[in-house]
Amino acid sequence: MEYEEPKFFHVMQYAAAADGDVIDMVSGNPDWEPPAALREALRDYADLPPDDFQYPPSEGLPELREAIAERRNVDADRVVVTNGTGEANYLAMARAFERGAGDEAVLTDPVYPYYPGKVDMLGGEATLVPTERDGGLDLAAMREAASDDTALIALNTPNNPTGAIYDLDAVREVVEIAHAVDALVMVDEVYDHFDLTGEFESALTLDSDRVIVTSGFSKSMAITGFRVGYGVFPEAHVGEAKTRHMLVNVAGARPSQYAVHHALAETPPGYYAEARELLADRVDAFTDALDAAGAEYSRPEGAFYVLARFEGFPGTMANVKRLVDEAGVAGMPGEAFGSARDEWIRFALVTPRAVEAAERLADYFGD
Amino acid sequence: MEYEEPKFFHVMQYAAAADGDVIDMVSGNPDWEPPAALREALRDYADLPPDDFQYPPSEGLPELREAIAERRNVDADRVVVTNGTGEANYLAMARAFERGAGDEAVLTDPVYPYYPGKVDMLGGEATLVPTERDGGLDLAAMREAASDDTALIALNTPNNPTGAIYDLDAVREVVEIAHAVDALVMVDEVYDHFDLTGEFESALTLDSDRVIVTSGFSKSMAITGFRVGYGVFPEAHVGEAKTRHMLVNVAGARPSQYAVHHALAETPPGYYAEARELLADRVDAFTDALDAAGAEYSRPEGAFYVLARFEGFPGTMANVKRLVDEAGVAGMPGEAFGSARDEWIRFALVTPRAVEAAERLADYFGD
Repeated sequence: MEYEEPKFFHVMQYAAAADGDVIDMVSGNPDWEPPAALREALRDYADLPPDDFQYPPSEGLPELREAIAERRNVDADRVVVTNGTGEANYLAMARAFERGAGDEAVLTDPVYPYYPGKVDMLGGEATLVPTERDGGLDLAAMREAASDDTALIALNTPNNPTGAIYDLDAVREVVEIAHAVDALVMVDEVYDHFDLTGEFESALTLDSDRVIVTSGFSKSMAITGFRVGYGVFPEAHVGEAKTRHMLVNVAGARPSQYAVHHALAETPPGYYAEARELLADRVDAFTDALDAAGAEYSRPEGAFYVLARFEGFPGTMANVKRLVDEAGVAGMPGEAFGSARDEWIRFALVTPRAVEAAERLADYFGD
Repeated sequence: MEYEEPKFFHVMQYAAAADGDVIDMVSGNPDWEPPAALREALRDYADLPPDDFQYPPSEGLPELREAIAERRNVDADRVVVTNGTGEANYLAMARAFERGAGDEAVLTDPVYPYYPGKVDMLGGEATLVPTERDGGLDLAAMREAASDDTALIALNTPNNPTGAIYDLDAVREVVEIAHAVDALVMVDEVYDHFDLTGEFESALTLDSDRVIVTSGFSKSMAITGFRVGYGVFPEAHVGEAKTRHMLVNVAGARPSQYAVHHALAETPPGYYAEARELLADRVDAFTDALDAAGAEYSRPEGAFYVLARFEGFPGTMANVKRLVDEAGVAGMPGEAFGSARDEWIRFALVTPRAVEAAERLADYFGD
């Protein structure tokens, strides 16, 4: 299985080259405004003296780390500011493997394709464990998959692509499974601001020395291109994570960190609520139209995506291209996310044309 | 040997905590103005629509890659825009090792401390080969050091810390040595705009399929905190480099890339010449004062640094701290750069107080 980006680009390029008008539901890029304070901070930054254009501390601007630590209720020493959540995930996985505690990573299926890509790059072996039909964790299957060779269990909640939010008790059980085989648990919470249930709880509340939580501001502030993420590492692992971060990247980009810090301090809760409500409205409208199209789908509890299954139309790259050409809607083939959802197609709701896309799907499939 | 940053921070912190006034000649952060077009572009960027705040292509903004390719006279497909030159070096080294062509890296001594740090992180073994007394390459020693186990030879020219600029014929010979043992040659040219001889030639002019050239805008535009670098990879290796870049970082920061692209297009040659002249003046003044202090030193052909040796005062951390306390000048201990210059202390000339620092050294040592 390839990681996501090449397939993502492949579909994007195919859609861009298509004759007709195509609605892009491929990428996970928010289409709404970033916080006003972020734009303002970037303008302010442009006028700072040269000193402020030089290396920030490798682990991130102190004021940003403090603000993250306060929000996540952890010691600031445990926070490493990274080049997006992607780097935080890389650091977490590398840390799990370099301990000499095994070469295997237990991942869920469907899976965010970067995870197995990173595991492979780090010399590990990925074992994919299918989730429940509703996207929830199959704890018995995970317990069975874990072995002495397991160094890492990686979770993503709210989940891309299923939209599932894992119950904190289930995450606690995963941590117990990890403990039994000396594995670390990486929990990627980058979609935490897009909890549509109001019941999401961070894995940090477990206060476990086996849990690395990763996240970032790409989604919550609609700035995937700024590359500001972070990892919260247990004390025993944060030093090694900082070392690797320094040796790979030296530091993250300071203009981005500066702007995010100000946006974090000055953005009212209403900004986040508004984006969440926009997304919830799109979920309603999109799933209504999927009902009309006779599709099966998973109603997301969080994140940006809806997985849909159309009878006799499996989620292959060929079918995704057919949908571009014949329905004018571009999604991601389910086969990009492992094998458990290869009958399905993922639609990202981060376009103002989500409803129009759903109508096109209803027209196409609803006869 | 530790890599630079912790020792760097150690000295910085010691200097900051000192009682008296201390002139910082530790860091390689330029102290002059960035290009005006860079500030202007950052202001413009702040007002762009949300689409422009999302992921750039993983390998960098196309217009930036094109501009780099044009300046370096290479195909744009070979250019990967990275999170600073540091990431480009990491990608180059990883590529050298992952080919199964050996585990050894031949590095120069003195060496930029991140290099052995990265080699170690990547599971390789560093072999340090002392340079000539003037900082030039000892080709016979490098030929002797290279073996079938050598996967990588890493050069930095203009050199940190020696200030040497390698003759293109010498670099060509290194490439031949590498060819004989199936190694790749990484040439870090991040200081190429600070060639004080007018005779620097890029390793790209060798047009070799064994050479990876890395560079960036941290030094030339006085923006070490923006994290915009790049690698120019041979065609056979660029695909794997892009994959690793994507899996580690997804992409670099877009505000930074946008600003650098505009600065690259709109900054007149006079900007770079002025910074170079400022540096040349500081070299003159600083080395004059070193003469007065009775110190031995290497007059830099390029880059930001002067290595100096004071009789009976070797370049240990203890002596560097003594210099902070007793002379009010902070440098980097030569022992941080390997063993070949452990009698020496490195002074970075990126402070407006370089001349004042030299006078303090003359007062302290010149009795």
